Amino acid sequence: MGEFELIRQYFQPLAESTRHNQLILGPGDDCAIQRIEPGQDLVFSVDTLVEGVHFPRDYSPEHLGWRSLAVAASDLAAMGASPACFTLALTLPSVDSHWLEGFAASLAKAAGAFGLALAGGDTTRGPMALSIQVHGTVSRGKALCRSGARPGDLVCVSGTLGAAGAALDFLDTAAPDALQQAILARYHHPQPKLALGQALACHASAAIDISDGLLADLGHILQASGVGASVEPASLPIMDELVALKGAQATDLALTAGDDYELCVTLAPGAFEQLPPGTRQQLTVIGLITEEPGIELTGRHLPIGAGFDHFRRSQ
Amino acid sequence: MGEFELIRQYFQPLAESTRHNQLILGPGDDCAIQRIEPGQDLVFSVDTLVEGVHFPRDYSPEHLGWRSLAVAASDLAAMGASPACFTLALTLPSVDSHWLEGFAASLAKAAGAFGLALAGGDTTRGPMALSIQVHGTVSRGKALCRSGARPGDLVCVSGTLGAAGAALDFLDTAAPDALQQAILARYHHPQPKLALGQALACHASAAIDISDGLLADLGHILQASGVGASVEPASLPIMDELVALKGAQATDLALTAGDDYELCVTLAPGAFEQLPPGTRQQLTVIGLITEEPGIELTGRHLPIGAGFDHFRRSQ
Repeated sequence: MGEFELIRQYFQPLAESTRHNQLILGPGDDCAIQRIEPGQDLVFSVDTLVEGVHFPRDYSPEHLGWRSLAVAASDLAAMGASPACFTLALTLPSVDSHWLEGFAASLAKAAGAFGLALAGGDTTRGPMALSIQVHGTVSRGKALCRSGARPGDLVCVSGTLGAAGAALDFLDTAAPDALQQAILARYHHPQPKLALGQALACHASAAIDISDGLLADLGHILQASGVGASVEPASLPIMDELVALKGAQATDLALTAGDDYELCVTLAPGAFEQLPPGTRQQLTVIGLITEEPGIELTGRHLPIGAGFDHFRRSQ
Repeated sequence: MGEFELIRQYFQPLAESTRHNQLILGPGDDCAIQRIEPGQDLVFSVDTLVEGVHFPRDYSPEHLGWRSLAVAASDLAAMGASPACFTLALTLPSVDSHWLEGFAASLAKAAGAFGLALAGGDTTRGPMALSIQVHGTVSRGKALCRSGARPGDLVCVSGTLGAAGAALDFLDTAAPDALQQAILARYHHPQPKLALGQALACHASAAIDISDGLLADLGHILQASGVGASVEPASLPIMDELVALKGAQATDLALTAGDDYELCVTLAPGAFEQLPPGTRQQLTVIGLITEEPGIELTGRHLPIGAGFDHFRRSQ
């Protein structure tokens, strides 16, 4: 048995512990098989994470497993989809059983939390990187796209913004204090807003998950919808810990920092009012969709694309 | 616009030129959307290719695009599936417009030939590697799995075997002669047996594509089916050019070398006889499924797993 056959054995328990009734055939054949109910559409998305680019070198495998599946699942949340299964393409420079155990356990925890069954994958030797593709389903024609925002719609975000980006400054700190720990948790342990996305599927006009920063991601909605937006920075939801740590800078982070994996959605005012209270309470209104392209920010006008660009950051 | 936004622009024409009626939403949103007809199952598979492991450093982008999609599509052929779409997770160390043009053009050619529409992807910076996930459909319950081989079934292969593996010896040759060129074509330009796989979907008892070598891949069928096989090496289909180049060694290559991407299938003798002549003519009978585990090879008995292991080769 080859070394990489052994690696795959670390993921066997994950394949056995995560199940989904749509997954007719899991790992081990040429393909996996998923059976989608009539009236449902398949939605899917792939994300690659490269060591030293998307996560630090020597990043804890206990964090990496959760974080990589959460990042991928967040795209399902942004479509309003119900999670089904995922594939893992894992490239590793060598076999480190301690690392593999930690990674597989963390991935299993995330898979269980998000309701994603391991459907298959590929394990290869090379510089450390992983690609995860997630599959979900939505009722036919009900997927939340980026292109549906209309002038007059409210711009809303879930949760709080900016903390994950602030954590980048002290990811390596050996003994983080309580404030830092609260902020680090947002980077290491993102919570894709799957239930919220599904609750919004028949109500919101457009949605995206905030991976590259609010301005950049809202910019994608505006561009796809052919509209603009005005945003009130004072209304941005920010963790108390982030304000305590960063003071006035916290607002800039909430506008531009990535890695939060909250949702940014647009809704007609009437649709917002009709949301179940439990759903509405998870959203903060931060602005308004306008006709003029670009983002109006407390009187400043930003052209689209002025946000914190994911790929520029990657370089 | 970031450098990697530019990269994605190289794939825009590919997204526009490749279409599939199941693909409701292609690249550019949080997820792609595929609509699968009732009565059809989704089948999918992911393959990673790492530079220096699965293809040589400085490998021609004109070959890489075709080869990487062909390798992935071959898994659909092995399930008897109709191709639909694919995602591309591409990691590149830097932006090289000449490389990108060649790669995208070659990928577009393969996508057109195989009937696979580009559904989405992710482009990141890092050591060169790519993961391709292919999606296809099969009639409910009709997918060809590895586990259906039964004692008495014929073992058949498509095309010819061993040439792609032989090409590894002279991939770098500056001026290959005619013999070498014929053999190199098998490595650079594999032809996934998509139509043949679909034609076999209601007839074969088990199938796999030959990526790791006949003995290794037939071994996977035997293991999944709980059976053994006897194989007659003299019956293996081998290109004249390979015999001319390698003499008696050609049979060893046909047994153990990978990268051919032909199909290995098992069929009950009656099912084989009932195949349309045009389908039957694409197959060569090379052996028989037996009850005793392992592979009986002209009197020699090999335990399963004695073939050329993909992952051992990768190391």
